[in-house]
Amino acid sequence: MTLQIPAPRPEDKFSFGMWTVGWQARDPFGDATRAPMDPVYALERLAGMGAYGVNFHDDDLIPFGADDTTRDGIIERFRKGLADTGLVVTTATTNLFTHPVFKEGAFTANDRDVRRFAIRKVMRNIDLAAELGAKVYVCWGGREGAESGAAKDVAAALDRYKEAFDLLGQYVADQGYDLRFAIEPKPNEPRGDILLPTVGHALAFIETLERPESVGVNPEIGHEEMAGLNAAHGYAQAMWQGKLFHIDLNGQHGPKFDQDLRFGAGNVRGAFWVVDTLLAGGYDGPVHFDFKPARTESDEGVWVSAEACMTNYLILREKSKAFRADPEVQEALVAAKVAELSVPTLEPGETWSQLKEWSLPDVDALAARGAGVERLDQLALEHLYGVRG
Amino acid sequence: MTLQIPAPRPEDKFSFGMWTVGWQARDPFGDATRAPMDPVYALERLAGMGAYGVNFHDDDLIPFGADDTTRDGIIERFRKGLADTGLVVTTATTNLFTHPVFKEGAFTANDRDVRRFAIRKVMRNIDLAAELGAKVYVCWGGREGAESGAAKDVAAALDRYKEAFDLLGQYVADQGYDLRFAIEPKPNEPRGDILLPTVGHALAFIETLERPESVGVNPEIGHEEMAGLNAAHGYAQAMWQGKLFHIDLNGQHGPKFDQDLRFGAGNVRGAFWVVDTLLAGGYDGPVHFDFKPARTESDEGVWVSAEACMTNYLILREKSKAFRADPEVQEALVAAKVAELSVPTLEPGETWSQLKEWSLPDVDALAARGAGVERLDQLALEHLYGVRG
Amino acid sequence: MTLQIPAPRPEDKFSFGMWTVGWQARDPFGDATRAPMDPVYALERLAGMGAYGVNFHDDDLIPFGADDTTRDGIIERFRKGLADTGLVVTTATTNLFTHPVFKEGAFTANDRDVRRFAIRKVMRNIDLAAELGAKVYVCWGGREGAESGAAKDVAAALDRYKEAFDLLGQYVADQGYDLRFAIEPKPNEPRGDILLPTVGHALAFIETLERPESVGVNPEIGHEEMAGLNAAHGYAQAMWQGKLFHIDLNGQHGPKFDQDLRFGAGNVRGAFWVVDTLLAGGYDGPVHFDFKPARTESDEGVWVSAEACMTNYLILREKSKAFRADPEVQEALVAAKVAELSVPTLEPGETWSQLKEWSLPDVDALAARGAGVERLDQLALEHLYGVRG
Amino acid sequence: MTLQIPAPRPEDKFSFGMWTVGWQARDPFGDATRAPMDPVYALERLAGMGAYGVNFHDDDLIPFGADDTTRDGIIERFRKGLADTGLVVTTATTNLFTHPVFKEGAFTANDRDVRRFAIRKVMRNIDLAAELGAKVYVCWGGREGAESGAAKDVAAALDRYKEAFDLLGQYVADQGYDLRFAIEPKPNEPRGDILLPTVGHALAFIETLERPESVGVNPEIGHEEMAGLNAAHGYAQAMWQGKLFHIDLNGQHGPKFDQDLRFGAGNVRGAFWVVDTLLAGGYDGPVHFDFKPARTESDEGVWVSAEACMTNYLILREKSKAFRADPEVQEALVAAKVAELSVPTLEPGETWSQLKEWSLPDVDALAARGAGVERLDQLALEHLYGVRG
Repeated sequence: MTLQIPAPRPEDKFSFGMWTVGWQARDPFGDATRAPMDPVYALERLAGMGAYGVNFHDDDLIPFGADDTTRDGIIERFRKGLADTGLVVTTATTNLFTHPVFKEGAFTANDRDVRRFAIRKVMRNIDLAAELGAKVYVCWGGREGAESGAAKDVAAALDRYKEAFDLLGQYVADQGYDLRFAIEPKPNEPRGDILLPTVGHALAFIETLERPESVGVNPEIGHEEMAGLNAAHGYAQAMWQGKLFHIDLNGQHGPKFDQDLRFGAGNVRGAFWVVDTLLAGGYDGPVHFDFKPARTESDEGVWVSAEACMTNYLILREKSKAFRADPEVQEALVAAKVAELSVPTLEPGETWSQLKEWSLPDVDALAARGAGVERLDQLALEHLYGVRG
Repeated sequence: MTLQIPAPRPEDKFSFGMWTVGWQARDPFGDATRAPMDPVYALERLAGMGAYGVNFHDDDLIPFGADDTTRDGIIERFRKGLADTGLVVTTATTNLFTHPVFKEGAFTANDRDVRRFAIRKVMRNIDLAAELGAKVYVCWGGREGAESGAAKDVAAALDRYKEAFDLLGQYVADQGYDLRFAIEPKPNEPRGDILLPTVGHALAFIETLERPESVGVNPEIGHEEMAGLNAAHGYAQAMWQGKLFHIDLNGQHGPKFDQDLRFGAGNVRGAFWVVDTLLAGGYDGPVHFDFKPARTESDEGVWVSAEACMTNYLILREKSKAFRADPEVQEALVAAKVAELSVPTLEPGETWSQLKEWSLPDVDALAARGAGVERLDQLALEHLYGVRG
Repeated sequence: MTLQIPAPRPEDKFSFGMWTVGWQARDPFGDATRAPMDPVYALERLAGMGAYGVNFHDDDLIPFGADDTTRDGIIERFRKGLADTGLVVTTATTNLFTHPVFKEGAFTANDRDVRRFAIRKVMRNIDLAAELGAKVYVCWGGREGAESGAAKDVAAALDRYKEAFDLLGQYVADQGYDLRFAIEPKPNEPRGDILLPTVGHALAFIETLERPESVGVNPEIGHEEMAGLNAAHGYAQAMWQGKLFHIDLNGQHGPKFDQDLRFGAGNVRGAFWVVDTLLAGGYDGPVHFDFKPARTESDEGVWVSAEACMTNYLILREKSKAFRADPEVQEALVAAKVAELSVPTLEPGETWSQLKEWSLPDVDALAARGAGVERLDQLALEHLYGVRG
Repeated sequence: MTLQIPAPRPEDKFSFGMWTVGWQARDPFGDATRAPMDPVYALERLAGMGAYGVNFHDDDLIPFGADDTTRDGIIERFRKGLADTGLVVTTATTNLFTHPVFKEGAFTANDRDVRRFAIRKVMRNIDLAAELGAKVYVCWGGREGAESGAAKDVAAALDRYKEAFDLLGQYVADQGYDLRFAIEPKPNEPRGDILLPTVGHALAFIETLERPESVGVNPEIGHEEMAGLNAAHGYAQAMWQGKLFHIDLNGQHGPKFDQDLRFGAGNVRGAFWVVDTLLAGGYDGPVHFDFKPARTESDEGVWVSAEACMTNYLILREKSKAFRADPEVQEALVAAKVAELSVPTLEPGETWSQLKEWSLPDVDALAARGAGVERLDQLALEHLYGVRG
């Protein structure tokens, strides 16, 4: 029986960055292959295929340095586009990486004026984000890093990084905005090494902030996989620490340049476990795709790939449900003692002294027991392949 | 003028694991090429070349499952060896990975009896560690992970991981031991993916423990580089968060199998910045080498490589000092505004509202300014090459 | 409609190495978790699940250094096992990596006696291979490499590598054996860097031999993916050069230690394209699995994973056929001009001078055309997910 | 004694691509940070610091689509610049990657018109290359690849790739140009996977051409290291096969985006062995740097990094010589039997039958012998660090 894959609907909470479908496909070795995209056109197409929301960098909408009149006109038109299509703004973010002024960093630039300018730029866009109803403000520090050792005092950089988040947290609190921050880690590119390179580093950093409760993470599958890490494990630890404020789904083929493939293309098996992990952990925020439609494609291909992101999520969601509901899987989970891991290691009320007196099990017999992992994983794979059910 | 490299001395605090010089050189495709090494012989050789300390897994000294008489005899002989050589025990750790019983995990094994056995094994060796004067107890969870998604409930695993550390922290507190824990992260190998894969993930996890102050990290250069991460950045963040309780120095060539090359061989430029970062951050614990003498070598090569670890550290330490003292470097640091990053971004007393009113700099002029990074890095490289001074 | 996946049958030509199902699961950090496996038991189990053939290293069957009587007895029993089960020996190979004598290399060891011993060892096993009917003799030079630069003169090593293959080619020719060689490339592990690290390097090397026609390659998916390469592209180039003499299928998750996952687990999308490429290229040799049953498993899990290798191949084979037969795919292939690549770039009889006079196309119009890749790839992905048809 | 590092001189044959020093520093996430550079200014600066030659893509000099008058004027001015500075044109190449028309490939584009246009573009620039005295024509097929499986028939692509080289070889022969081709491999970026991804794949491909003698390789350090390969080994195999027609030196930190760091920055130890390998193999062509001056830098930093490429080569060249001349090194080479690898494995006149009768050595004694690699490598490292001599 083939799975029935529903069409995308707003209640699935799919969202897209304006910079994704609107990417002109300029890469380090090639010029743009697509014309600039009208934001309202993008809203219409996304709404037409069942999306729920959008998000943007300030400069996606409003050219860097635009005057206030231009800015207001653009915002007005965008707001009308949202109203007409019913799309919501789920998050917003600041472009602190394209303009040459940020070439050496933004919040952690050695040049203090650059840092001040960067924070100003964020505050201004936070106002717009709040106004448009965004609930999460994403911060990707793509230029916060270095290519060599001497030019960046990492401890000082982390001090300044903290200073920036503390200041922005104060700003949001003082303004009374209903807005939380989500740090998006990335190990490298465009910088040789980027600070807060993984979900773990960002989670650790957040604990040092004045308002840790208002800052979480926005892990991107491809960014974690660029470090050879298991993306699902990263999402799981973020949820376990109560910090999964937003997600960026896409595709990647291991440690190489940032591919930003459509979700589902890339590490297919990894994508399945990401979806399964999100469902298991009860993630209920927007399902956001941060991908780049392939540079080979015209406008038509942009929408094929955007729609495919949603379709692939729905395929994997249905597969995860079918996997979990399969009696043979449930039996294999028991055989692999998966649920036993949720039982505390100590008995209720037991302390170390009692554990010290515990009569040891037969270690060799324990060791000889097969863990039953391969059977379980093969069942998962057959669900992924769609050959069970 | 060639740098004068001093000979290793105990005050340099160099330490070696018994499992490093004693490695028999069994690898996934090959049998042992060296005979088992007598621990006392190892102590004598290490002391003879200027080392300060040693450390061990329980099973390095005492065969798994040895009876108490055997155990006591071994410990007595080892203790005498320490006394005779003047070496100290800097850290100890538990082997929770070699025996088949741990094949599916230890603190996070699905099988609860395995978890109980693992914690018991740790408690027993903590007693020995404390008795021998170790100040740090290292925990490398090499088997805490998975090769596939279904068999490991990551949230439950993190619960159990926390339970184990909380219990062990209680144990140490109750026993009154002067001992802190250091988690050693690793992204993979022997498991397909290991939990707490990087310094960042471990730092984040520690914040969830009952006694976060008594748990830090023990980053290994090679482990961070297996994830393509900048090891010096990891050490810097750990120090910035007050958590660098111990270090494991060695060499690696990027994302591939765990090479455990002698320190200095591997990513040479990375090694320089690790040493420079440790000096800058004031790390003053043992300088520990966790390497494997190449499988091609006989006993003679073991000691050549062990001594080279210390020599290379001293070379890099002297280079770091010479680099920092070089007037041309100091000038280049000023040109690159490196110290300006230590100046808070806000003026004293300034708040966001004043920053909002700050009159913007000339962004294009700011952007046009060269960052001076290449000159600075080339100076560092010439110090590394030993062609300046 | 769910695909019907047939059960494995001998005509599918599935084969397994004795060292795969018989792997005792010793890894760099852990002791064996499984007992040695009786080869005849392995034959019976494999035959029982529909396999076609087996292959072996000399030392898989006959302990290193066994006397002739022991050897003859083992061979006789193995031969009877083959006869009883109907399995054939498809290939054989030499273990030139486990014994410490090969620690610095075999065909390219600096020590000439080691090289002579290695070639002798191969000749002896070639006799057995021919006697047992193997048609391909696989050569994996796992120890031919280095961890550092000075100790290995690479040009001299390639001279010796060529000398060994030329000598062995002469041997096979003189003996009149119906046997070709297949070099199995690998980038690293157990050596820091291995000579002939990829399919490409091996193909290039073969052209320098005295009998290039009798030497081809045996690419392993995981080995190519450890270098971040596209395994299907490697198989395609090998077939294009007429050199795909054998294949090693398994699973891997990018640049890290050699995982040897069961085929299908690992890079799922990559596995699909490998099978599609093999079918397109008309590969008709044995379909060999070079995997390691997970160390977590007991004997039961060994056979689950072995059977899954075959099942996954059959699943992907049926998917590839269904994909190629799908009318919507055929239409998308036309839109993407895939077949146009088979049309020579020049007209029949055209030369460069005519091409120079060719009236240029409208380059901007050409550039504006979408390539139709995303639609095509999404159709492939939906076949992989099993949601079409 | 500190090594004396000479200043760069034309007889060192250092050359630079116009696209390197002239790179405007646009990256996938950022706009240009530097203005376009006047080619004649570049020539003057390079000549002023001791360079020997330059090279260019057609579009580096002449804007894509420029009319003949513009083209002639530019060439005339460039030719005068060469004459004035004494710089020579060592190689030339074609830009088949920046313009959107090449988005899906050039020689292997599915669209036949694109392929025809690409070959035309190459022929035109070959005329200019020959006219300006280039002796090597470099071909980097950066767009010849794919992100997914179905859209590229790899066998057909290799047919077309061969067709293009055969046609261009005919063209050069018919024109009587003294020009050879050098293929520059790269594993990925900008395409997900690029055809002929490594030195090995290119060497193998060349053997299939009509004029293999006129086609070699141009390996780039960073490209090989992006696949985790040992760059020196790649250069060594290319020289061993008589195919090292040109070299691209730069720096990289393992599998990640293409960093194009200045030579010497990156994998320092690898850089040393590349230089040592080139000297050992007698490479005497131009020493070309294909790097990108860091995006953080202004014009001043461009020249700092360009000069540093040359300085670092000279440093490593002197170090290699000092290493080879060091008596302790020579003794360690003997101990490691490095030269013994140049002795044929067979005695003069010996055949396999005599080898079969050779009386076996004591294998255990052979196995027990240490290979002496660590001592040798540590001596090399101390030369690299500049602390010996």
